[in-house]
Amino acid sequence: MSLIVTGTIGIDTVHTPTGSAEDVPGGSCAYFAAAASCYTPTRLVAVVGEDWPEHHRAMLSGFSGIDLAGLETRSGSKTFRWGGRYLENLNDRETLFTDIGVLAEAPPAIPEAFQDSQVVFLANTHPAVQLGFLDHLPERRFTVADTMDLWINTAKDDLLKLLQAIDGVVINDSEALLLTGLRNPIDAARAIMDLGPGTVVVKKGEHGAVLASGSDLAVLPAYPADSQQVVDPTGCGDSFAGGMMGWLAARGRWDFAELQTAIAWGTVSASFTLGSFALDGLVDLDMSVLEQRMIDYQAAARVGELASIRS
Amino acid sequence: MSLIVTGTIGIDTVHTPTGSAEDVPGGSCAYFAAAASCYTPTRLVAVVGEDWPEHHRAMLSGFSGIDLAGLETRSGSKTFRWGGRYLENLNDRETLFTDIGVLAEAPPAIPEAFQDSQVVFLANTHPAVQLGFLDHLPERRFTVADTMDLWINTAKDDLLKLLQAIDGVVINDSEALLLTGLRNPIDAARAIMDLGPGTVVVKKGEHGAVLASGSDLAVLPAYPADSQQVVDPTGCGDSFAGGMMGWLAARGRWDFAELQTAIAWGTVSASFTLGSFALDGLVDLDMSVLEQRMIDYQAAARVGELASIRS
Repeated sequence: MSLIVTGTIGIDTVHTPTGSAEDVPGGSCAYFAAAASCYTPTRLVAVVGEDWPEHHRAMLSGFSGIDLAGLETRSGSKTFRWGGRYLENLNDRETLFTDIGVLAEAPPAIPEAFQDSQVVFLANTHPAVQLGFLDHLPERRFTVADTMDLWINTAKDDLLKLLQAIDGVVINDSEALLLTGLRNPIDAARAIMDLGPGTVVVKKGEHGAVLASGSDLAVLPAYPADSQQVVDPTGCGDSFAGGMMGWLAARGRWDFAELQTAIAWGTVSASFTLGSFALDGLVDLDMSVLEQRMIDYQAAARVGELASIRS
Repeated sequence: MSLIVTGTIGIDTVHTPTGSAEDVPGGSCAYFAAAASCYTPTRLVAVVGEDWPEHHRAMLSGFSGIDLAGLETRSGSKTFRWGGRYLENLNDRETLFTDIGVLAEAPPAIPEAFQDSQVVFLANTHPAVQLGFLDHLPERRFTVADTMDLWINTAKDDLLKLLQAIDGVVINDSEALLLTGLRNPIDAARAIMDLGPGTVVVKKGEHGAVLASGSDLAVLPAYPADSQQVVDPTGCGDSFAGGMMGWLAARGRWDFAELQTAIAWGTVSASFTLGSFALDGLVDLDMSVLEQRMIDYQAAARVGELASIRS
């Protein structure tokens, strides 16, 4: 089933306790599409400025599953730039700078050839922009959005309208708390469901994820990673969403069992992002590599058999 | 296989954001034994003072799987008392008072009839006392200990000696960090393994647990609990250990697959402790109730099938 993602492409500068990466490809849309394109062809809609480096374009073009027909390069505009520094715990980070650039202008158009998309992911951007995209996706059947603290604080009315119009939300635990006032992620997920979407995934970073859909609940640990395997958390949440939505679009259904499987694939995809700077961990991934990691993950996260205590 | 637990029995006063419980049965040994005794007969070794309330004794005696032959009531001594208050997040707590009482005196004796015990859990107390118990357990085959920040800070040499003498450790994430200086729980578990024990479980509270044994790793989420199901976290770690060790003793083996199953049972047992004040959630539990919750837990924590994306 056709998958489309809208969101940001940026030029990132990231500092971690063990290294730095300057002016590397980033943005919610890039991470999502790079992860999702392993599972299913992925249509990308985003806008960059004329300063967008040619080698960034080359890298993104290297993902054969991404259709870049919706990527606009706008003359006279500047690409979104973000810089951040992760603290020693690698779970918290501070933003060093944000040059919003072309994101302050009109959003990119959804090409006519993409307007029949059925599975839609609205990666993080202003909720009014997210909502506007939906007008051009009349055949959408399953629409999920991400958001962030900035929009919860500054554009809550638009965000509440968006929530009424979509089927699912993927959100960080800290953002779920900010939006609902509820610290317990299950409470928060249910409160967000009361605002509209039938499915909510609360991402807990190194602590895994919670999925609530209807009256069903699922919980997953993160892929077990020691400190050698934790290089750069940037984009892990978007890659998680990419793995999840890529799986659902490939399967063409989103019943609870499929959603539960999808968040496991999201976890697997995110583990590759985590292990390298920028998009590097997602380059040259294919389903056979993903499946091997899924097998390792299933082995590590197995919940015990219900063997008798007498056997 | 015979299971023995040594540790503390106390009189607890607990305040949570939603309620309080005063002078209720508590202590590491009580929570452990109450949980473990569902799986296998559990020998308890502890000492209380003459002030220990008769209804506390009646409650503990009500757990038919606990053998109280090693419970000493010492004349002229006072029972250990602890009071604590949980913060709004229910993950952090402050100690209001600690009256160490009889714990400052000679430890209880291990009855001769208990000295052939094969599976041993040294619940939290001074590591020199934990080590001393081992002299009276010559037939032990699998010995696991818990510890806490107090002993890491004040009795580290004794703790390091203990670690050389045992097979496994069950420890909180914050204590694992304190002991090793390593925040990543997998790194910390491996560093503790370098100090002696072949198996380490790092408990992450609401975020589940990590198991490291030899070169194997397992990760589990906590049982999914919304805020209505989180009443009193006191004793959850001890109940987790009780479920884990009870299972291992019942099965009579502790290979990695069995350890992985055991931490799932520990998670299930702890979920009952969490849902009520003091030991109340563990009263009248039996394997059929535990198995039903295990089935629910397995369903919620299922890691997706490895179905083809084309099927």
